[in-house]
Amino acid sequence: MSLLVVGSVAIDSVETPTDRRDDFLGGSATHFSYAASFFTQVNLVGVVGDDWPEEHTELFRSRNIDVSGLQKVDGGKTFRWTGRYEPNMNDRETLEVQLNVFGEFDPKVPEKFQDARFVFLANGVPAVQQKVLSQAPACQLAVADTMDLWIVEHRETLDALLKNIHGLVLNDSEAKLLTGEENLVTAGLKVREMGPEFVIIKKGEHGAMFFGHNAAGQVEVLVLPAYPTQAVIDPTGAGDSFAGGLMGYLAEQDKHDAETFKTAMAYGTVVASFNVEGFGLDRMEQISREDIDERLAAYRKMLNF
Amino acid sequence: MSLLVVGSVAIDSVETPTDRRDDFLGGSATHFSYAASFFTQVNLVGVVGDDWPEEHTELFRSRNIDVSGLQKVDGGKTFRWTGRYEPNMNDRETLEVQLNVFGEFDPKVPEKFQDARFVFLANGVPAVQQKVLSQAPACQLAVADTMDLWIVEHRETLDALLKNIHGLVLNDSEAKLLTGEENLVTAGLKVREMGPEFVIIKKGEHGAMFFGHNAAGQVEVLVLPAYPTQAVIDPTGAGDSFAGGLMGYLAEQDKHDAETFKTAMAYGTVVASFNVEGFGLDRMEQISREDIDERLAAYRKMLNF
Repeated sequence: MSLLVVGSVAIDSVETPTDRRDDFLGGSATHFSYAASFFTQVNLVGVVGDDWPEEHTELFRSRNIDVSGLQKVDGGKTFRWTGRYEPNMNDRETLEVQLNVFGEFDPKVPEKFQDARFVFLANGVPAVQQKVLSQAPACQLAVADTMDLWIVEHRETLDALLKNIHGLVLNDSEAKLLTGEENLVTAGLKVREMGPEFVIIKKGEHGAMFFGHNAAGQVEVLVLPAYPTQAVIDPTGAGDSFAGGLMGYLAEQDKHDAETFKTAMAYGTVVASFNVEGFGLDRMEQISREDIDERLAAYRKMLNF
Repeated sequence: MSLLVVGSVAIDSVETPTDRRDDFLGGSATHFSYAASFFTQVNLVGVVGDDWPEEHTELFRSRNIDVSGLQKVDGGKTFRWTGRYEPNMNDRETLEVQLNVFGEFDPKVPEKFQDARFVFLANGVPAVQQKVLSQAPACQLAVADTMDLWIVEHRETLDALLKNIHGLVLNDSEAKLLTGEENLVTAGLKVREMGPEFVIIKKGEHGAMFFGHNAAGQVEVLVLPAYPTQAVIDPTGAGDSFAGGLMGYLAEQDKHDAETFKTAMAYGTVVASFNVEGFGLDRMEQISREDIDERLAAYRKMLNF
């Protein structure tokens, strides 16, 4: 089952306490697509400038990611992001953002993608996310990511969007900001009342929480820890690769019941644990589905008592 | 299999964003003992003053906690602690500490407790913890808790203690302080190299990590999330009740191999989740072993995919 993702494709530069890399492939939709491509065919909609290195397009193609929806704006420049991580490798500072062509992004979902049943709206302006939804009439599972900026400054359109999506993915501080609740269980349940059937709160190095319902319609709350790794090189894109692993698995299974969601959360966790082990997609390019399944088995064993 | 615990018995006062309670039964050894008493007989060594309410002793006795080692100092006052929790219910400020008789605590392990095979050295001066060990010659599993103050100001005696115990329990910020490492997996493994066979890092609302070895001698790293609860009333004693559930279960099983440890970690997690649902021991006094086992089953199901 193919999966549609719409969001940022970027050129990133990242500084960590011990290293620095410049001008590599990044962006929410990039990390999502690559992660999901281990599980299913991915259709990508995004925008780049004419500074875009063709080799990145080739990388997507090599992963069976359809780039027909990747618009190229002549005379424009690709979205650029530069960030620096604190010694704890969890907190980060954005040093520079050049929105460039992403600032005017008006996503056009190609006709051949419009039968998409699984749709991920990567972090972006809620009004733009909403626009994508109207171009995906066959969508059965629409999941959106969001961020503090939209919660504070685009609250009305975000509230409207929440009523039209099935799932929302956000991090712990965003969940607190959106609900005014400090307890994450309370916050997650409260976001659900704003519209989405299910909510996923990402807690970085502490894992993720799921709020949904089981087959009997009862509320179900799950918490899974992150897979323990010492090799945290670059956490950028961890949340998007988590979402990619999760949605990729759901699309592969063509199901989204509570049990499948739980396994999907575990796959998302494991894929994200690989993503942080290198700058950009470095580590992801070294692994196969077998590596993911092997780590999933270790993760399952760890949680089984 | 009986379990020996040595540590503080206190009178606590706690302020939270929505409530406040004064002068109730607290202390590390108290929370530990009560939690462990669901699993095994507990032998408690501690000290109180002559302001000590006899009803607290009765409570211990009602739980099959042997208080022969609870010294009463005539003319002395019991250890008192007053704290205030931040709105996140994780960070707290100590408003007042009166060490009183605990400041001069010179633990005497009664002869009838000296055959103890499972020993928990609740948070205290490392030199005093060491003194307890020498009074427990039959000990097979000695586990200690510690804190930032001893890491900074009693480092030498702490380092010496680490070579004489089997396990160390500490929280995430303490693990970082002790090792200088920001990555908790690296920190946990490094603490193990300082002596203890196994290390448990407590992460509050985010659960706990275990670093030990399996039957083949290979390093084993486990992470378990906290049990998700909305009803966080007073987190004081969460770590001690976690340790109590864990050690209580190990003593009950009379085993401490890697597989038993994993289940013990789960029991500790579940017991701690009850402990935080009331001030002091309020919630603990309402529950039975059946409630614990029921929540353990839900927790196991949550982690099983």
